[in-house]
Amino acid sequence: MEVSIQAALADLHAGPDTFAPDCPTRVLLDHITSRWGVLVLVALSSGTMRWGELRRWARGISEKMLAQTLRTLEADGLVLREQRPVIPPHVDYSLTDRGRELAALLLPLMEWIIATAPPQ
Amino acid sequence: MEVSIQAALADLHAGPDTFAPDCPTRVLLDHITSRWGVLVLVALSSGTMRWGELRRWARGISEKMLAQTLRTLEADGLVLREQRPVIPPHVDYSLTDRGRELAALLLPLMEWIIATAPPQ
Repeated sequence: MEVSIQAALADLHAGPDTFAPDCPTRVLLDHITSRWGVLVLVALSSGTMRWGELRRWARGISEKMLAQTLRTLEADGLVLREQRPVIPPHVDYSLTDRGRELAALLLPLMEWIIATAPPQ
Repeated sequence: MEVSIQAALADLHAGPDTFAPDCPTRVLLDHITSRWGVLVLVALSSGTMRWGELRRWARGISEKMLAQTLRTLEADGLVLREQRPVIPPHVDYSLTDRGRELAALLLPLMEWIIATAPPQ
């Protein structure tokens, strides 16, 4: 494990400005690792969801924060928003291919957290 | 990939209160995914560092925020703080076994971010 970490770090340091305050990597990191960003990405990894389903999944999120999180993830090309022309109209949220790639990396992290968090 | 995501999600939903606002998993998630938490964990995955080295690595972090991030990660059992009785005295920060486990999950995420972030 030590070796692969070292190799990964060498990559991380390959660009002189990686994770510098004004680097796009830092901005994307902030979006992805925002509390709600992670939870929404993990929620959508199970499939398409509507607004109300997402709110129930990410218990504690406000309407405003959910709207903002979804807009940010959509702008990052991670989440797809599709308005359905049905009656009553509704909006579906799902992961893009890029979002699915990311979710596949986030899920082992979530599992680790669940396995190792202190008991409630 | 779809299948393993589904399996992981089933695990995620195993406990009714996982990622509920007052669940310890949510607290740990917040600590780990704080902007600085991630960067400090990744920095320390390359080995022991002193305060000044960490500050240089996580460009843009304030003294206060670095101190707070390290205290939080130490309390979570992820970072080890060791005061060295040398002259001049200094403090070493390193990952615990648990911190190393976590870093191994975070590094692929960082690599993905670097590979896919929009150009600067």
